[in-house]
Amino acid sequence: MLRWLTAGESHGPALVGILEGVPAGVELTSAEIASELARRRLGYGRGARMKFEQDAVEVIGGLRHGRTLGSPFAVRVGNTEWPKWQQVMSADPVDEAELAGQARNAPLSRPRPGHADLAGMQKYGHTDARPILERASARETAARVALGTVAKALLDQALEVRLVSHVVEIGAVAAPADRLPTPDDAAAIDADPMRCLDADASAAMVAEVDAARKDADTLGGIVEVVAYGLPPGLGSHVQWDRRLDARLAAALMSIQAVKGVEVGDGFTQARSRGSVAHDEMDPTAGGVRRRTNRAGGVEGGMSIGEPLRVRAALKPISSLNRALSTVDVATGEPATAINQRSDVCAVPAGAVVAEAMVALVLADAAVEKFGGDSVAELRRNLDAYRKELVIS
Amino acid sequence: MLRWLTAGESHGPALVGILEGVPAGVELTSAEIASELARRRLGYGRGARMKFEQDAVEVIGGLRHGRTLGSPFAVRVGNTEWPKWQQVMSADPVDEAELAGQARNAPLSRPRPGHADLAGMQKYGHTDARPILERASARETAARVALGTVAKALLDQALEVRLVSHVVEIGAVAAPADRLPTPDDAAAIDADPMRCLDADASAAMVAEVDAARKDADTLGGIVEVVAYGLPPGLGSHVQWDRRLDARLAAALMSIQAVKGVEVGDGFTQARSRGSVAHDEMDPTAGGVRRRTNRAGGVEGGMSIGEPLRVRAALKPISSLNRALSTVDVATGEPATAINQRSDVCAVPAGAVVAEAMVALVLADAAVEKFGGDSVAELRRNLDAYRKELVIS
Amino acid sequence: MLRWLTAGESHGPALVGILEGVPAGVELTSAEIASELARRRLGYGRGARMKFEQDAVEVIGGLRHGRTLGSPFAVRVGNTEWPKWQQVMSADPVDEAELAGQARNAPLSRPRPGHADLAGMQKYGHTDARPILERASARETAARVALGTVAKALLDQALEVRLVSHVVEIGAVAAPADRLPTPDDAAAIDADPMRCLDADASAAMVAEVDAARKDADTLGGIVEVVAYGLPPGLGSHVQWDRRLDARLAAALMSIQAVKGVEVGDGFTQARSRGSVAHDEMDPTAGGVRRRTNRAGGVEGGMSIGEPLRVRAALKPISSLNRALSTVDVATGEPATAINQRSDVCAVPAGAVVAEAMVALVLADAAVEKFGGDSVAELRRNLDAYRKELVIS
Amino acid sequence: MLRWLTAGESHGPALVGILEGVPAGVELTSAEIASELARRRLGYGRGARMKFEQDAVEVIGGLRHGRTLGSPFAVRVGNTEWPKWQQVMSADPVDEAELAGQARNAPLSRPRPGHADLAGMQKYGHTDARPILERASARETAARVALGTVAKALLDQALEVRLVSHVVEIGAVAAPADRLPTPDDAAAIDADPMRCLDADASAAMVAEVDAARKDADTLGGIVEVVAYGLPPGLGSHVQWDRRLDARLAAALMSIQAVKGVEVGDGFTQARSRGSVAHDEMDPTAGGVRRRTNRAGGVEGGMSIGEPLRVRAALKPISSLNRALSTVDVATGEPATAINQRSDVCAVPAGAVVAEAMVALVLADAAVEKFGGDSVAELRRNLDAYRKELVIS
Repeated sequence: MLRWLTAGESHGPALVGILEGVPAGVELTSAEIASELARRRLGYGRGARMKFEQDAVEVIGGLRHGRTLGSPFAVRVGNTEWPKWQQVMSADPVDEAELAGQARNAPLSRPRPGHADLAGMQKYGHTDARPILERASARETAARVALGTVAKALLDQALEVRLVSHVVEIGAVAAPADRLPTPDDAAAIDADPMRCLDADASAAMVAEVDAARKDADTLGGIVEVVAYGLPPGLGSHVQWDRRLDARLAAALMSIQAVKGVEVGDGFTQARSRGSVAHDEMDPTAGGVRRRTNRAGGVEGGMSIGEPLRVRAALKPISSLNRALSTVDVATGEPATAINQRSDVCAVPAGAVVAEAMVALVLADAAVEKFGGDSVAELRRNLDAYRKELVIS
Repeated sequence: MLRWLTAGESHGPALVGILEGVPAGVELTSAEIASELARRRLGYGRGARMKFEQDAVEVIGGLRHGRTLGSPFAVRVGNTEWPKWQQVMSADPVDEAELAGQARNAPLSRPRPGHADLAGMQKYGHTDARPILERASARETAARVALGTVAKALLDQALEVRLVSHVVEIGAVAAPADRLPTPDDAAAIDADPMRCLDADASAAMVAEVDAARKDADTLGGIVEVVAYGLPPGLGSHVQWDRRLDARLAAALMSIQAVKGVEVGDGFTQARSRGSVAHDEMDPTAGGVRRRTNRAGGVEGGMSIGEPLRVRAALKPISSLNRALSTVDVATGEPATAINQRSDVCAVPAGAVVAEAMVALVLADAAVEKFGGDSVAELRRNLDAYRKELVIS
Repeated sequence: MLRWLTAGESHGPALVGILEGVPAGVELTSAEIASELARRRLGYGRGARMKFEQDAVEVIGGLRHGRTLGSPFAVRVGNTEWPKWQQVMSADPVDEAELAGQARNAPLSRPRPGHADLAGMQKYGHTDARPILERASARETAARVALGTVAKALLDQALEVRLVSHVVEIGAVAAPADRLPTPDDAAAIDADPMRCLDADASAAMVAEVDAARKDADTLGGIVEVVAYGLPPGLGSHVQWDRRLDARLAAALMSIQAVKGVEVGDGFTQARSRGSVAHDEMDPTAGGVRRRTNRAGGVEGGMSIGEPLRVRAALKPISSLNRALSTVDVATGEPATAINQRSDVCAVPAGAVVAEAMVALVLADAAVEKFGGDSVAELRRNLDAYRKELVIS
Repeated sequence: MLRWLTAGESHGPALVGILEGVPAGVELTSAEIASELARRRLGYGRGARMKFEQDAVEVIGGLRHGRTLGSPFAVRVGNTEWPKWQQVMSADPVDEAELAGQARNAPLSRPRPGHADLAGMQKYGHTDARPILERASARETAARVALGTVAKALLDQALEVRLVSHVVEIGAVAAPADRLPTPDDAAAIDADPMRCLDADASAAMVAEVDAARKDADTLGGIVEVVAYGLPPGLGSHVQWDRRLDARLAAALMSIQAVKGVEVGDGFTQARSRGSVAHDEMDPTAGGVRRRTNRAGGVEGGMSIGEPLRVRAALKPISSLNRALSTVDVATGEPATAINQRSDVCAVPAGAVVAEAMVALVLADAAVEKFGGDSVAELRRNLDAYRKELVIS
């Protein structure tokens, strides 16, 4: 069992994440974490913040001399903007006089549509939206990505499972569906401004972003994560919450802005007939293989040994550079929503976050299936399992 | 916190479910559970089994004289076919001679595409698919529906939250999107052969099922669950696995055959621009209201006080009345998959199951938010919360 | 991960338990479960109910032809007294007239000291103690023992771990501490009226029970569970709730009437100096061995390969055949507590329950450490682990 | 539901803890956390480290201007010794040459009896004990105490529940049992060198420590935590793992060195007869009161409204200033255990840690019972509950 929790506010001193249950012997450096965090800042259509975010990484626990110890992994991602915010976001009480002049400290009473603001204020009893938006901000995903780095390293080193993520749709522009990226495409995808596998589609997406920016509008899109090398049998059909697809769905839907999730052909499969919706099997020299992979690598809530393929739909960024109607909770009167940020499109980064969440779920399922408190033990158990499969 | 587990095999003596954490004082009868189970057998396109399934309900614990006690609720759903299966599915060893003549006992070595069969056999080390398909079968959802009855009663009685589910697409036929059903439509929906709100669409769906049956094919579709009356603030943005949408996504994706989930406009929203994707707010006499509900009643992982709207995409039934290619695990040779069932379409029933899962998640979130070990206490805490809202 | 839940009321139709996460291939029969349930009724000092309790066992799921399937194990333990209670404890509403004459149905408004009665009524909002005492009754442990049978079989067959439990103190009588029972002593212990290893101590305990009965009083005592054959490394020091001792403490303390738990020498060790409190190690032909086992087989929250030894202290039965002062919640006036049962001492049975709970925790820790969805896989992973130990 | 995880190694840069589920509006400062951490360093018999440990507290998330936000609380407790350890404990690989000269970096191959060392090395596959002892060290309890500060503040502010802890036995010296400390005694207890309520017993304990130090030996002891002001009904009898006593037992047993736990009179109660073991009740002007509190404030797994009283037995410190026999895992030969620390007795600090763990469990149970996402809401729900009690 892996467990992970994150904490920290968007403009607080740092985010922090703990990932618990990591086997010993995973090779990892803080530079690799920083590199994953840099990937999260990728993508055409981001605002100024992404440029100065430096994501100062401090590994607090669980790692020594580049190898995990078996103890909980903890990482602190420092906020390089902290000096500007240290009074407004101070944990301890601050002298009223010091705060008085700070515009940033003014209560935010006009909750933004599409955000956690209003429901959060109602739930937690705040008259100021700041306590909500500070935590609900997608900045929190930096901690997830940092933890996902460990999960990805574990999957790679113990199971030879490798992940790749990419953008398949931005607004009205869809990439062609004819080619599935492999881990070998990962570098090229990262180099593309839209993290899209197809150059033409990418160019059209860039144009879509430019058009939206011109209109002071924002865009959403659809991302896909593919995992190669999974053994059959991760997850289980025996109980609803053991199903791999259910766990993936929760992990993906938990990402800020995600409103839809599908496994394999998902909604398209629902619209097909059974005769063309399933993946027939053949015996091959390399074991049983499916002729197609419409199921996206999951049947009966279990991995089947084919590439895992999941998609997440992200709604357009909710903070717009144009006025949205809301209510001022201080007065009860109609108002224009506060405006916090100005990215046009964060979907490319969303794909990186989705990759991290998928990695965490898969690593959890692998540890559940194979046990193992070290990479060597996990790999040994996996190898023996593969060798003894009823049919491979 | 509510917890629930189910157990039992499709052709075993019974299914059983335990729902733990139910407040005391929920009014409920075993007839209501039987009635919900009957709803799960609804729908045009089902095979013979649905007709004779009687779902003999025995409430084992947690209920006395029609009111929950606060102790775990447990229900046994007997299998009326059990006499035919009692040797083949006997818990205890059975004399080989007795089993010898029984065709039903022959090992199933030709796993079906689209099912848990092969991955399950590999995972659990079985050379016979029966132990897998017995548990992976959608028969298991009877236990979920039985438990969902309790959740629905709790939601209704403590929160005045009411649910309705319906079918929005079957294969290539989609119902018009212009009207959202309310709980007042529930009886009419149940009376419709496709559990569809729109009569014309329903007729087209029936024709679609007939056409598929003629072709020995199967159909999937899309179902929607809508919940009315939710207070704002169920779920939370503070941690990934507290988000209401993440929990709903897991619950829906865990249903057999579901391959996609969306909240509100979901995938459609991802393809829209921000200016038309969010729900602006107005102060009204009845509190803050959204002009639209594209978000499906969830923002920032929390309910917002608007109707909750979630959809699940079900793939076509994987057991076809035509040959699908597979591998015989006994020989390693190509083979034709075993054939277990002959429904054409189970989507109307899938909507009922989705409704149960949504009810369980919402009830869990309500108990988490409001605490309360009795309906009276939960309602009292809710009422006080509503009254003290920062803005209602 | 193993999960287990029980449900059912003491005088309801049945208890039911679900144990989830059980690997496939555990050999088990319902007769073995019945036999464990019979052990739970053992012991001198029990009242009439133990004689007629027949604990009709129905395995509902997870077992076929004497082998677990990998699916959730579920067992129903029928209440043979049910016909007498079926109106009073009916799940569904019963006609008032039918209930009118039944003494058993009269509300119990005088909560018993030492029981869940009063706090439960306050918590769940009942004016009748019956809903509380029906669930709080130690009758519930029958479901735990039934599930523990599966855990014991798993431990035995996959890990060659065997458990034995015995009574070490009854009231003021303590058995000599010089001999630790082994699984070979189990039959003799079960045959002893007090489940005590030492014949003389047993005789003194019997006398103690007789004396207490004469005085219309009750007795508690201390039980010990010992597990042989555990590999090192179950549980972990890395997080508070992964520690094996913490999990054992919760499991034992959760047994009705248990008020104290110790691992190894426990409280005695706290009163010793460090120089005589620890277990020095030697290399031997059979691997590293401790000279002593004061730690009870757990160091740093992990099993160490020495016998696990835990104790639980049970308070005397709270239902006395003499008047205890309480309050009538119907009137607020002083009253004499309701009287439900007349055992003098249930400690021998308590040892059997403790054994079941220890088995469940150990099986959970084993599945966590070694993964494995079948007995064969678990054993294979364990064997490889033992072989590759840094030092054995 | 509250969840908490800690991470960090004893000589790493810091410990870190996340406490998730904290309601908004708890008043707290980092100075209060530092003050609790200082209490954890109290007590006669500690070694040098306690003097220089400064426990640099950084609140990373969940707190703003002295009030919790509802988001996860996270705290980093810096290790002021870090500069001395930064190469040996570096997360990232360090140049071999730099490490070569550092004695601290030499592998520890002689595991200490009484510690996690050997089992941890076996479990995680280390040939060096450092990765184990760094995490198993009681230094980790600093993170627990820091998180416990939040729990204590929540209990105090939302429920008016106050805790006090004290030492009741050290080695062979026991404090008189005639007086139970109240929160008003807390300052005096903290001022006592042994954190003992009784001056004479304290003096005898100090002498006991001096005698043990002279003999290069160590001491354990017994601590007690008492909580005042709990409402009835925290925890539940309905499921084994909902019981408050079970959860307290796990929390206390999870503390390094704890080998025994009891609730109320615990083991003593097991040796008494029923007639003198239970707590009879009387109606009083202030509600139902027990004449005695042998049960320690818990019946049927629930708080009963009387003071909660739990004890933990700590074994003597396992690191002795004298040679203990072990095995060198590098050679397989007999050896003398490595020696890491030289406290004589850490029981007074253990009481502070126990207090923190009890606070965390009680806060969790309170949030479970009363829900509430803010102090105001929790208090409101509690007040309404108290007012509507069947009988108070």
